[in-house]
This record gives sequence, C-alpha cells and structure tokens, in this order.
Amino acid sequence: MQHVDTLIYAGWIIPVEPENTVYEQYAIAIQEGKIIALLPSDEAVSRYSARITHRLSTHVLIPGLINTHTHAAMSLLRGIANDLPLYEWLNTRIWPIEQACMGKEFVAHGTQLAIAEMLRSGVTCFNDMYFFPDVTAEVVEKSGIRAAIGLILLDFPTVWAKDANEYLQKAQTVHDQLESYSLITTTLAPHAPYTVSDMPLIQGRDLAEKLNIPIHIHVHETIEEIQGSIKQYGKRPLARLNKLGLLSPHFMGVHLTQLQADEIDLLAKKGVNVVYCPESNMKLASGFCPVHELLSHCVNVALGTDGCASNDDLDILGEMHTAALLAKGLSQDARTLTAAQALQMATLNGAKALGIDRITGSLVPGKAADITAIDLNELETQPVYNALSQLIYSVNRDKVTDVWVAGKHLLKSRALTSLDVHDIKAKTHAWRTKIINIVEKLNITPIPPKNEEIDSIHDTIEDNAQE
Amino acid sequence: MQHVDTLIYAGWIIPVEPENTVYEQYAIAIQEGKIIALLPSDEAVSRYSARITHRLSTHVLIPGLINTHTHAAMSLLRGIANDLPLYEWLNTRIWPIEQACMGKEFVAHGTQLAIAEMLRSGVTCFNDMYFFPDVTAEVVEKSGIRAAIGLILLDFPTVWAKDANEYLQKAQTVHDQLESYSLITTTLAPHAPYTVSDMPLIQGRDLAEKLNIPIHIHVHETIEEIQGSIKQYGKRPLARLNKLGLLSPHFMGVHLTQLQADEIDLLAKKGVNVVYCPESNMKLASGFCPVHELLSHCVNVALGTDGCASNDDLDILGEMHTAALLAKGLSQDARTLTAAQALQMATLNGAKALGIDRITGSLVPGKAADITAIDLNELETQPVYNALSQLIYSVNRDKVTDVWVAGKHLLKSRALTSLDVHDIKAKTHAWRTKIINIVEKLNITPIPPKNEEIDSIHDTIEDNAQE
Repeated sequence: MQHVDTLIYAGWIIPVEPENTVYEQYAIAIQEGKIIALLPSDEAVSRYSARITHRLSTHVLIPGLINTHTHAAMSLLRGIANDLPLYEWLNTRIWPIEQACMGKEFVAHGTQLAIAEMLRSGVTCFNDMYFFPDVTAEVVEKSGIRAAIGLILLDFPTVWAKDANEYLQKAQTVHDQLESYSLITTTLAPHAPYTVSDMPLIQGRDLAEKLNIPIHIHVHETIEEIQGSIKQYGKRPLARLNKLGLLSPHFMGVHLTQLQADEIDLLAKKGVNVVYCPESNMKLASGFCPVHELLSHCVNVALGTDGCASNDDLDILGEMHTAALLAKGLSQDARTLTAAQALQMATLNGAKALGIDRITGSLVPGKAADITAIDLNELETQPVYNALSQLIYSVNRDKVTDVWVAGKHLLKSRALTSLDVHDIKAKTHAWRTKIINIVEKLNITPIPPKNEEIDSIHDTIEDNAQE
Repeated sequence: MQHVDTLIYAGWIIPVEPENTVYEQYAIAIQEGKIIALLPSDEAVSRYSARITHRLSTHVLIPGLINTHTHAAMSLLRGIANDLPLYEWLNTRIWPIEQACMGKEFVAHGTQLAIAEMLRSGVTCFNDMYFFPDVTAEVVEKSGIRAAIGLILLDFPTVWAKDANEYLQKAQTVHDQLESYSLITTTLAPHAPYTVSDMPLIQGRDLAEKLNIPIHIHVHETIEEIQGSIKQYGKRPLARLNKLGLLSPHFMGVHLTQLQADEIDLLAKKGVNVVYCPESNMKLASGFCPVHELLSHCVNVALGTDGCASNDDLDILGEMHTAALLAKGLSQDARTLTAAQALQMATLNGAKALGIDRITGSLVPGKAADITAIDLNELETQPVYNALSQLIYSVNRDKVTDVWVAGKHLLKSRALTSLDVHDIKAKTHAWRTKIINIVEKLNITPIPPKNEEIDSIHDTIEDNAQE
C-alpha cells in the first residue's frame, strides 16, 4: 500500500488525454503537487492510502481550465460600456476611463477580483496581457493560481513605459524577476499590429526568441484593422507579421475573425496557435473566427474570454458552451466542435499554446495536479447519460465546487482558500465609487446610452475618420 | 398607511414597461397576487405596511421570465444525443427513444423536472408542446407555475391519438378541462408544416379561432423543411400556411431560421409572433434566425429554449445572453439587440405572443405578481454600474434566489416551495436507468458516437433519402 498526499475519488474523470475518454468511478492520486496515478476507484482503495481523501461521487473531474486570453484587471470595468462596437467602445469609453484609473492599485485589485472569479469558475491558469505585469504576477503568486504574464509592448507612452525601448527593457526586467516563480511563465505581448510598428515588433520577436517565450498578440480582430494595415503597410496584418518573421509555433494570435483561405493555410503551415474568444467577438461585433476550418486544418485553437469589459465574465465553461454551439451554427454541421473538442480547446490546447503542456492541460501521471471538480448532482444536470456532454451543454460555473492548482486546494466546496472574498468585495466597491466619479468628470454617457446618443457618437467618429 | 400582503424592497427594479428603465432602491407592493404599486423604497416605508416584507438590497427584480417554447417532459432525455444534425438526431435517436418511453408517467415526471429547473432559473411561465397535455397541465397546476399548454396536432398516430381527427377532438376536450385552471391557457399546437397536412391545419385554425387561442407551430426550422415543402406543396411552408389562412397576430412561429426578405415583410404585415430559440438552432445547425431584421420590421420576437434534449437546458437567462451576443455578431453591429431588448424578448414579448400581456410580462400595477429576484452581490457580477447590463452579460441562473408567480413565493432563497427536489431526483434517476436499458435494447449508439459511426449513420440517411 503506497502512501500519497491526496486521493480523490470521483463519479467521473475526463482526462482529455487520451481524447474523448470518460472514466466512471475513478480515482486520482496526488503526490508533491503532481498526478501520480489515475485508476478505477475499487483498485485505488487497495493500492493507496492518503493523508487527505476526497469522495466526490457525484462530481466529474477535469483538467483545470485554461483561460488563454485575459486582461484580468479590467474586471473592475465589468459592464461599464455595452452595446457598442470595438473602436467606439475603446475610444470613447474604455481607454479614457482606463487611463484615468490606471496604476498599481487598479491592476492589483482588479487582478485579485479576476482570479477569485476564475478560481470559482474552474480556471487554474490564465494568459494575461496588461500594464504593470509585475503587479499582476505578485497577485498571481499570492493566490496560488498558475499564469502566463504578458510583457506588454506598445509604441505609445502609457503610465507603464514612455516608448517601445522602455517597454522592451521592462519586459526583460520583469521576465528576470519572475524566473523564480514556479507557477508563472511569461509571454512577449505586443498589443496589436496597429499599435506596434515594425521595429519594436522585430525587437520583440528577438527578445522572445532569446528568452524562449511565446508571443501573445491581438490580430485580425476587426475588418477596420485589416483596412488600416493595407492603407499603412500595403498588406494585411498577418502578411506583415509573417514578413517580420513573427509567425511560428511560439506565436499566439488572438481573435482572428478575419481570415482568408490562404491565411488559414499560412497559420497551419507556420504552426501558429489561435486563441478563440467567441463571446468577446460577438459582443463587439468584430466578426466570427472560422474555427471549424482552423480545426480541419489542424491548427491548435485555444479558448479565451478576453477582458471582463467585453464579455462580461471570465467564464471558460460558458465560453466552451458558446464555442461548441456557434461552430455548429456557422459550419451548418451539428457534428462540428464536439463536446470533447471544446474541452480540449479549454485545457490541453491552451497549455500547448503557452508551451506548458508538459506541465498541465490534461490529467496524466507526471503532470501537475491542476484539477477542477464539477458537481453533476443538481437538477440542472440530471439525468447524466454522458458526463462530457453535460459538461459542455448543461453545466454552468456555479457547479464548480473544488479546484486544485499544483495539488493545492484553492477552492474548497466553493470557498476560496487563498483569497479573502470580503476584502475583494470591499475593494471592488471602493473602485466602483471612484470610477463612477471618473465617468462623471469625463462627462461620458453612462451605459446603456440612448439610441440618439449612439448615433451622434457614431457620426463624430465617422467625421474624425474622414478628416 | 395601507396594509398589503407582501412588500419587496430591492436594490434595483427593472419593470420592462416603461422600456429601458432601471429603478434604484425601489419597492413593489403585492395584494391578492397582483402588483399594486412600484415606488421608491423610502416612500414605501411610510405608505405600506405588509404581512410579509422582503429586503433584497443587493438584488434586482425583473418580471418573471417567459420560456415561449418548450417540450418540458424531454428533460428526461437531456444529453442523450449530441453533436448530430436535426433529422439524424430526431430519426435515429430522439424519436425511437421517445416512442419507447412515452406515456403519462414519462410526461408527468419529465415535466416536473423541467418546472423545477425553470423555477430555479427565474422562469414563471412556459409555453409547452408535447403529448399528454392534460398530464402536463396537472403537473403545472400542482407546481403553481404559469403555463400555456399546447394542444398537439399531428397527422400520424401516436400513443396520444390515432389520427388528426382524434388529436383535434382531444384538443377540444383538454381545452375544456383546463378552462377552470387560473394560471393555465392553451394553444393549438400543430407540430410542424411537414407533419400536419392541409386539412388538419385548416381544422386546427378553425378550432383555434373558435376557442380564441393562439397557434403554436415549428416553422422554417431547417433548409430541408423548405425543400421538402417545395417538393410536396410547390411552395415554401410560410406561403402555404398563409394560403391556409393561419398567419395572424394569434400565430406563434417557432425557429424561422430560413427567411427571405419577402417573408419578413409577410410576418410583419400579418402581425405574426416569432419565437426565437438561438441555442437550439445552433446546436442542431439549423441556421440563424435574422432576429435583427425582424426587430427592425417591428415583428414581436419572444425567446424559447426548445426542449432540453436540444439545448440542453431550460435557461432563459442564458438564452438572453446568447441572443444578445449572436445578434450583434450576425448583424455586424454591436448596437443590435441591446440588454433592454433581450429582457423584453424574454418577458413582455413572450406574454404578447401568448396573448397574456394584460396579465403578465412586465412589472406594472394591475398585472399579476410574477417576479424574479436575482442577487448581484456575488463576485461574478461585481461591480454593478448598470443592473440591466449585468443581468444580460454577467449573471447566470444560479444567482436567481426568489420567484413569485401570481404572488405565491415558489422559490424562496433558492428552495422550491411547491416541489420536492428529492422526489424529482429519485424519479429522474429511475428514468435514467430505464432509458439506458431502452437505448441498449434499441441497439443505438450511446452518445457521443465515434466519427466513423456518425459517417455511417449519415451515409444510411443519405441512401434512404435517395431511394
């Protein structure tokens, strides 16, 4: 009889590897933060004794979910502006408000709120892009969640850096600071092709290669982005990034709602990773990513929520549901994006994109014990004919009861063990008051604006565009 | 000081009428099951005393949600078959299994499970179409929820009736039985244009007129339906129904994923009600209903989940979220289907379609106290800048805490007061065992089938179609 740290008995385990597999009445053994075995429950009884035993007989265990695109701190702006298109939403609402709030405290408190929400939603790892990545990392470290921290790169000055050179210097510095953090990796994160010019993109590429980290960038999000690139650079953004040598298996392109057939071939050929954010893309009316074609070209597609201001949640279970439904609708084939594929996108494919699939993304001996438990015993998920099907089509995130990251029990019967919910709520409430004052001072319309206001904003933007 | 039965103080009240309105720190007074006043909380304190007072300071109150298209009893088949297109899903899975289960007990137990799920999701009224409508009505009556019961009409024999004449006779009989049920209305429910021929449709139309009840029918759900109709009748289904005199403000057409410009004009001109089921349409890859065009033509659009076997939930909050996002994506305009419009579709528009908007659908003095309370105090919905925005874009159904139907408190701090959850779970579990045996006897593949199995099913169906 072998002694282990933790033994979890579950009604079902869906390991993701091997694919499309549901184990019934199974157990998972954990030692020093790692999975050491998956086996039938009746065998586990006689093979392992454990310091801590959990009996989750009505639950399904899945690999911890990976949210592969976030701007975590923007949680504090949840619902501040809705029913507006991307450029209008950014230019007239999000950026002015963000600029007025931005600082270490905003990032720390917003990220804390986001991590609390994500852990309660079964997410064990997220891939972030925001200002003050050093602050984000500190909050991540304290919370015990796993994360990839984006080292932001822009042309223009912000409170974080004054020019591309300083962004790159800070990227190197923050990367070095974080090397000792066991659950944190980094990415080089140029914001988008329209906010970073050629030279910094090349320098960023070189830095990412030197540090051996992925590149994380928004790309082909809207038709306006494509049109702008053609006007400014004479080519579409992906063609430009390809010419600059950025496309590779270390490249994560987020959104990709505008894709021609030759571009899908290019993504497949270069081994690029796509991060699909279906809810954000719909909410901002950016377009639809042809995920069924990407899948048929064997492109690695991961799932992200995007920031909370454009979603308005950080709910990867919901995103799997949306992705599976939408892909069927768009491809006109109900066999597209099966439940198993949706779960793989939200777990293993995210880990692959982040270059951490040897560590996490599936429930396989040797990997970290990043595990999410979901209770299928409530009326809303009964009866259970197939746990995998319930997971994608019936479950919602409030059924997530327990989460482990590297074996640490961070959500325990829905209670967060590393974060103080009352403190987070109090800070969020204080920010709400502050931000409402900012909105009033900026004299921008609280949302939802009336239709005539929207029309007038639209006219202004069109006028500006024509100038 | 006036004495009332119930007084509810809330953080926010969204009455739906007047539209796009959010009252903060408001109260609602209820007397004999009806709303008698909405007023600021500080006025309510001095104007009303109440037998029962609820203080829901972190909650938003909305009109009880209306699920305008269900097959409630199919809850027992939740998740039995996924990732398959409509005809395949119906012919090879749902219909054979359903036929083997069908009977009064299946309908009673399945409907009970569905009502429990709906009440826990904030639904106070549903519009059903299924066999044994008398049994459905009995369960509805016991539960205290409001419902429109579809009087099913088909050409072919089932366990409910042997031919169209018997369906129509039974429709009249069940309608008469239900006239004394105060929370129940009926609809004449021909299943679909492809399952009901001209004569019964005309007789059904006449019966609906005589009884002064709406017609509830699936129509233009798939391209195959259109093609079949052109082949059989020389015209598209809507044109045929128009010729038969069915289209009117008493007509509820469900799905309408296949619509030409002239058909949208026709729907508008005839005052037809459309029931939009976005998740079911996507899941079965039926197509997309052009809801933004219907809205711009002032067609009354209500929301439905469809049966639980094609969704796989009865969650109208989720359906509002999906509808709002999808309409933006499809119309390429983020201003389409605002939060206020989504809520109106799920409340007042459903009541209008069912002809009960004088009774329910908005929080207006004189209407029934059909009210849903949703807590916005959890991390997932914080901070609150706009309660209406949170409701559509951040809330999920587990935040529904309380539901009243005609003033009766049917969900109380998430506990059902009229239904026994343990009993429902036990019955559901027994049905699960029975249905798994049926699936084994029918020798149909448990879901999800492997890809090669799907291909072979597909080939068989195509072979049959060509014969």
